[in-house]
Amino acid sequence: MSYQRINRQHNQLRPVEIERNYTKYAEGSVLISTGDTKVICTASVEDSVPYFLRGQNQGWLTAEYSMLPRATQSRSIRAAAKGKIGGRTKEIQRLIGRSLRAVVDLDKLGERTIWVDCDVIQADGGTRTASITGAFVALMDSINYLLETEEIKESPVEEFIAATSIGIVNDKALLDLKYQEDSQAQVDLNLVMTESGRIIEVQGTAEETPYTRKQLNRMLDLGERGIAELIKIQKEALGD
Amino acid sequence: MSYQRINRQHNQLRPVEIERNYTKYAEGSVLISTGDTKVICTASVEDSVPYFLRGQNQGWLTAEYSMLPRATQSRSIRAAAKGKIGGRTKEIQRLIGRSLRAVVDLDKLGERTIWVDCDVIQADGGTRTASITGAFVALMDSINYLLETEEIKESPVEEFIAATSIGIVNDKALLDLKYQEDSQAQVDLNLVMTESGRIIEVQGTAEETPYTRKQLNRMLDLGERGIAELIKIQKEALGD
Amino acid sequence: MSYQRINRQHNQLRPVEIERNYTKYAEGSVLISTGDTKVICTASVEDSVPYFLRGQNQGWLTAEYSMLPRATQSRSIRAAAKGKIGGRTKEIQRLIGRSLRAVVDLDKLGERTIWVDCDVIQADGGTRTASITGAFVALMDSINYLLETEEIKESPVEEFIAATSIGIVNDKALLDLKYQEDSQAQVDLNLVMTESGRIIEVQGTAEETPYTRKQLNRMLDLGERGIAELIKIQKEALGD
Amino acid sequence: MSYQRINRQHNQLRPVEIERNYTKYAEGSVLISTGDTKVICTASVEDSVPYFLRGQNQGWLTAEYSMLPRATQSRSIRAAAKGKIGGRTKEIQRLIGRSLRAVVDLDKLGERTIWVDCDVIQADGGTRTASITGAFVALMDSINYLLETEEIKESPVEEFIAATSIGIVNDKALLDLKYQEDSQAQVDLNLVMTESGRIIEVQGTAEETPYTRKQLNRMLDLGERGIAELIKIQKEALGD
Amino acid sequence: MSYQRINRQHNQLRPVEIERNYTKYAEGSVLISTGDTKVICTASVEDSVPYFLRGQNQGWLTAEYSMLPRATQSRSIRAAAKGKIGGRTKEIQRLIGRSLRAVVDLDKLGERTIWVDCDVIQADGGTRTASITGAFVALMDSINYLLETEEIKESPVEEFIAATSIGIVNDKALLDLKYQEDSQAQVDLNLVMTESGRIIEVQGTAEETPYTRKQLNRMLDLGERGIAELIKIQKEALGD
Amino acid sequence: MSYQRINRQHNQLRPVEIERNYTKYAEGSVLISTGDTKVICTASVEDSVPYFLRGQNQGWLTAEYSMLPRATQSRSIRAAAKGKIGGRTKEIQRLIGRSLRAVVDLDKLGERTIWVDCDVIQADGGTRTASITGAFVALMDSINYLLETEEIKESPVEEFIAATSIGIVNDKALLDLKYQEDSQAQVDLNLVMTESGRIIEVQGTAEETPYTRKQLNRMLDLGERGIAELIKIQKEALGD
Repeated sequence: MSYQRINRQHNQLRPVEIERNYTKYAEGSVLISTGDTKVICTASVEDSVPYFLRGQNQGWLTAEYSMLPRATQSRSIRAAAKGKIGGRTKEIQRLIGRSLRAVVDLDKLGERTIWVDCDVIQADGGTRTASITGAFVALMDSINYLLETEEIKESPVEEFIAATSIGIVNDKALLDLKYQEDSQAQVDLNLVMTESGRIIEVQGTAEETPYTRKQLNRMLDLGERGIAELIKIQKEALGD
Repeated sequence: MSYQRINRQHNQLRPVEIERNYTKYAEGSVLISTGDTKVICTASVEDSVPYFLRGQNQGWLTAEYSMLPRATQSRSIRAAAKGKIGGRTKEIQRLIGRSLRAVVDLDKLGERTIWVDCDVIQADGGTRTASITGAFVALMDSINYLLETEEIKESPVEEFIAATSIGIVNDKALLDLKYQEDSQAQVDLNLVMTESGRIIEVQGTAEETPYTRKQLNRMLDLGERGIAELIKIQKEALGD
Repeated sequence: MSYQRINRQHNQLRPVEIERNYTKYAEGSVLISTGDTKVICTASVEDSVPYFLRGQNQGWLTAEYSMLPRATQSRSIRAAAKGKIGGRTKEIQRLIGRSLRAVVDLDKLGERTIWVDCDVIQADGGTRTASITGAFVALMDSINYLLETEEIKESPVEEFIAATSIGIVNDKALLDLKYQEDSQAQVDLNLVMTESGRIIEVQGTAEETPYTRKQLNRMLDLGERGIAELIKIQKEALGD
Repeated sequence: MSYQRINRQHNQLRPVEIERNYTKYAEGSVLISTGDTKVICTASVEDSVPYFLRGQNQGWLTAEYSMLPRATQSRSIRAAAKGKIGGRTKEIQRLIGRSLRAVVDLDKLGERTIWVDCDVIQADGGTRTASITGAFVALMDSINYLLETEEIKESPVEEFIAATSIGIVNDKALLDLKYQEDSQAQVDLNLVMTESGRIIEVQGTAEETPYTRKQLNRMLDLGERGIAELIKIQKEALGD
Repeated sequence: MSYQRINRQHNQLRPVEIERNYTKYAEGSVLISTGDTKVICTASVEDSVPYFLRGQNQGWLTAEYSMLPRATQSRSIRAAAKGKIGGRTKEIQRLIGRSLRAVVDLDKLGERTIWVDCDVIQADGGTRTASITGAFVALMDSINYLLETEEIKESPVEEFIAATSIGIVNDKALLDLKYQEDSQAQVDLNLVMTESGRIIEVQGTAEETPYTRKQLNRMLDLGERGIAELIKIQKEALGD
Repeated sequence: MSYQRINRQHNQLRPVEIERNYTKYAEGSVLISTGDTKVICTASVEDSVPYFLRGQNQGWLTAEYSMLPRATQSRSIRAAAKGKIGGRTKEIQRLIGRSLRAVVDLDKLGERTIWVDCDVIQADGGTRTASITGAFVALMDSINYLLETEEIKESPVEEFIAATSIGIVNDKALLDLKYQEDSQAQVDLNLVMTESGRIIEVQGTAEETPYTRKQLNRMLDLGERGIAELIKIQKEALGD
């Protein structure tokens, strides 16, 4: 029953690719692949804000997340066909939005909304963290668009962010779980962090076996390392 | 006000590409591009049939269609967020399902369902006809999977089909409208046809100006020609 | 298994009756019967337009369609009880609205909406085409009301329209299918046409067997003939 | 401001007509008119019972109520378009079902359901009481159908019932309010009663001014009289 | 099978307790217990009115009613989980709102809304009547708040009201039914009355056996007596 | 702008009270108060499991969470009235269920479901953690009920758990935030832990300012201390 990673170290990410300008209409449009997980992330600029923010001279950023029905091993029913969005999906879209807003100065955005859409084409674990990492790049492209068209003067983005997952499988901490690993993990932790190493969100859930503070620290160490690498890849993609 | 096609004849299709095995889980998975219109078409096999067909020793095929929110020039609201599927979407998914079923002998499929999913990544006119053309290839792959795994003995597909759109713009019939043409067309006609030149579905709608029988015939001529070409491309993609 | 029409020629309509002023509140209110199919069609004038048209000095026309639960042989569940409108119903209400709008100059209507409601009391095939034919008369009555009350100066209706269905049963084209015929038709075609013989909408669906261009033309010939007769009956009902 | 009935006594019903076999498919189908209020009432027999009654060897009767959108002076939005049934509609359909069940011995019905549908074609006050009075006749026809086809041996209906409304307008009790009266009534009372003069349901609501026990009794006297007359009309319609 | 009340007369209420200021935020907040039935009733003041009343210089009062899932013997599914409010709940919330509005002069309330919320913590029969009786006290507290903060000058409440249920069990009329009695009652009557003995609402439903006018009067006598007592308890709670 | 706690140390909980047997029907029923936050937690035993677990000889535990509309400073709209459950509510009920399941051996529960309902009567911060702490006691009571009625032989609960919140306000870590503190916190962390000091769930969200690993550790220290105290209070309430 003991699981052993092959061809990848416990502290190693899967191969990551970020393809910009993936579709032609969105102000930012990215296809991110982390291993076999593939997500289309777009950032769309709209020249208005939700009702509760009108006239306050500040912007808004919100995120939506979805999977194609056959992104997974067995086909799942579309949320639209069920007529409602499931709890897991709502959790994820709130997480993505919260994470990106944490590094965006909404006052500098002006009265506009950035809609971030993360659509999973193929799912092999870590779709929510790949969504955040890819969406940040799409966000940057949409901000660059606003700067180039001189709709804003100054970038509202304060720092790079990225996200990854860490888990404990067979009592061993592993970075960036693929689906097969995730499904047998005792603990599943998602970490969203900035370039300066500060935490935006940590969510660590014991699937069956509660975990110790020491294990938590081990997982955070792995996560920090992975996020540093992801931010390097984001910067390369953006040509920084 | 007069529109003139540049770099393409009135009777010419846009460039078509069909990429098979686009995602890894579905029994059939195709990315079809016709010009800038891009659709992911998957065919998923499920070993059961809807309630109303149980015990009748026959299969079923059904289709769903959706657009990513930013597949279009301005972002549209997700059906899931609205909690209901719009009329246009329902029309299209019924059309796709009906068209494919017309060439599938459901008795030969056994008690299984093929779910066809068409998800538009980028929309530049003709998404419903591109969906049918691409979905047919995904369907063929799923049937080949069933033949290879020996779950069925004989293909239930009777004939190749493809679909295209034809319109009248400035009183001139044009094959395979892109969005800019579609938005100024007087008439919009969708045609689904078999390899043997028989009609599965014709839907011709006067957007503003009713059209004559003669114009209808002109459009059908163009459509026949385009569909013959599309079926050639499908066959090449399938390695026939 | 061969079907033979009795007491009616293949190119003959069922008896059609149009009763105006069927209910007392609507600006236009018609009960149309085509054979045993009976539909109440009302046209209601509202002094405002939908949000997307405000301030553009033009009107709107929209249609809704429904069946009483026991309009059919076995009782069907109300859309309201299911909490959503089915795909077939949406298709039909879009068709009715599109067809009527094709002959209404919305600029001449002013900033008002005409709501067309088609409620099927008894269904024996051809409910959507009977709805269009009846709704046109209700529309005319509502326009006459607006002319008489001097709310508009000039009729925005450009031409008479009517609709009928044609099918292929046992390889023979038949005009105006009743339910028993419709349920065994190989092809089902709905045609909406103007008095001047131009097409507003043609929808021809192969239920099982694709059809040839020649068969399509045969059906259109029958349809043209039927629609000419229906328009004669509309005119008589309106006292023209 | 004082209202005076013209051409009708305070204790007089509006003209009532009951037309049986109004549509051809339902086991019972009635068009009832009370003045300008017109309701189509059908009773449909289904050979099964709801889940909670299965295997208990008893039947069920349930009712649904709806108005055509333009049954009223200004068009109302369809429940199906809103995606939910309003509180008033739910109250009314529960009242109709409860009233009819009170005189049906469900044990004698066997494991079948009678669906009663009341669809208001034109509304001029008293639609819920007209629905009950008309639905009872449709119910009787559906029971007669079951007796004639020998599906049941003995009628489960124990007694005739009918319903009417009574109100207080200008401090005067009036029987069978039309809409104009209803809209200015201080009190609105609906009464459902059996032929033997026993009460199935009384619902008396003070719209603004609470009412005395004496006024309640006055209204019940009028109601008793009206119901006796309605039952006479039901019996004539049924040919008793 | 004959039921006999123990420790309580047929014309006696269960013990009633009214605890004011039960929660800290609402302008009026009451926990009412009648026997084992316990309801939290709050009255919340909002400084606006619904759309249909804007600019008419009058107020509004509306009520909502709900049960905790395990307020009853077996757990019931939350309305929120089902996505719709049941017919019984809608009936009850309409009754509560209508009853309270009957003694409130909405003109004197100004352009504000009072939201009355009745949440049943524990249900042992008579939850709707306990809700009305308790909500009236919460309403009085919210009115007193408006008078003390000088938002209104004069109380819009015209008279005290309370409500109770009466039933016929084993042919004997009983006041204030607990659940065990209610479940075997032949008739169930809810009465809402003012301090001056005038009726706001009477709803008497034969569960199986229709009832006579004489029985109706017997129940109203019991109800009048109970309501007088309830109003005495309300006044004590309010320190009048 | 600097906030200073008065009458409470930064590492001190608010007063906690746990009242068992709060309502009479549920197998476990608890009212928990932490300061002014009050939640009714019930545990209801049902003798079946959801569809996906049938026949696997194991149990299930699921949780629902809701707030009374006026549990908060301004009234919120009921989820039932909106027809859907909000994202925050879904997140919370998933958290409660997951936390409790982490210490329940579902195999030992047999084929039954425990429904945990947490209904917030009054909200002053920390409603989700109070829900978990209270729900655990209700769960224990329901398990004791199953042991006493001999439906199970052995308790499936493996360890005590409790939950609390910690935040950073003015750069200072505070235990058990009340609403006023929570609304100005830079970071909000929820911690669910077992008696043995192991973590079930940690969720730390930067509201605006990302936080350091050191701050995370400081918050976890406070949380550990608070949870130890809460478990002591749970044990006293349970009479251990």
